[in-house]
Amino acid sequence: MRPYDERLDHLLAQAARVFAEKGYHSTTMRDLAAASGMSLAGMYYYTPGKEELLALIQERCFTRVLAGAQQAVAAANDPAERLQAFIRHHVTFFAQHMAEMKVLSHEPARGVAAIKRRYVDLLEKLLKDAARDETAVDRSAAAYVLFGMMNWIYNWYDPAGEIDPRRLADLITRIFLGGFVGAHSEARATHGNDD
Amino acid sequence: MRPYDERLDHLLAQAARVFAEKGYHSTTMRDLAAASGMSLAGMYYYTPGKEELLALIQERCFTRVLAGAQQAVAAANDPAERLQAFIRHHVTFFAQHMAEMKVLSHEPARGVAAIKRRYVDLLEKLLKDAARDETAVDRSAAAYVLFGMMNWIYNWYDPAGEIDPRRLADLITRIFLGGFVGAHSEARATHGNDD
Repeated sequence: MRPYDERLDHLLAQAARVFAEKGYHSTTMRDLAAASGMSLAGMYYYTPGKEELLALIQERCFTRVLAGAQQAVAAANDPAERLQAFIRHHVTFFAQHMAEMKVLSHEPARGVAAIKRRYVDLLEKLLKDAARDETAVDRSAAAYVLFGMMNWIYNWYDPAGEIDPRRLADLITRIFLGGFVGAHSEARATHGNDD
Repeated sequence: MRPYDERLDHLLAQAARVFAEKGYHSTTMRDLAAASGMSLAGMYYYTPGKEELLALIQERCFTRVLAGAQQAVAAANDPAERLQAFIRHHVTFFAQHMAEMKVLSHEPARGVAAIKRRYVDLLEKLLKDAARDETAVDRSAAAYVLFGMMNWIYNWYDPAGEIDPRRLADLITRIFLGGFVGAHSEARATHGNDD
């Protein structure tokens, strides 16, 4: 990584942490400079202002999470496994980026709507393959219900606590696949007309 | 309801709406007075400030949601039904109070921690009865995963859209009961040693 990118990465990570702790509105450029160990002038070399910094954090974060999910999904072998890979990637990624996650969740994304849309589309496509009998309306709602399970963790989850990210991802996978996907495919496969 | 309570209720509902739309930090007492059709002086008769108003919104909301859940649960007949009643009550209540919900979710509750704790305890007790074989750690995590499904709806759900609150509650119930509770109790009841 080039020095410019490295320092920008450092700035974005620190800014995400400060936004998450103090709240976006209460944070000043001076706070961000102090947290990242830069001078105010040095920081303006990287960004024209707070709003652009927030947009940059969101864009980088969504770009990475989308690319990572595409890679994770491509390595899986069937619809249920692809869904599991998507969930595992999302949960472990966000467990490592709790501050960014809080920033992504609380502030409206600007200029990143298109990337976010592609990420939601990816999940909806996976659900279409994994739960063919559901209506499009229920599938779409189920996608957001799943995002709720995964994204709400910034409110309660401690990655250093009793449940590591992989175990949490497995729990969410079990609930979602068992309750939405499994209720149909597995039930039908093993004993006919359940549910 | 006495006139004092009625006006206070009106003020709290309007304040929740403005907090949800503008953000708590960007909202002034003047904004709140304008939105509730009161004079600034009239508003100070009900509350000493913005912070106390927020605490009051949260306290009223949690007190009601707790009382409503206790009532809904008491009317149900078995552990799975009680859990379903809890979910249905939570989702329909919040679908009718989206603004309050956003305020509850985004700002740290002050002075309402005890009520909130009782509400979480109620769900954990229901889960203990409905999913006896799970470890306490998984049950506790599952409780928060369920809150995630239900609370995240303020980010995407439109109660006036294609899915009414009852249908959304049924979808969440199906996912959670099928994936967490059903994976054990139902599976064992009907065909022995699944999962």
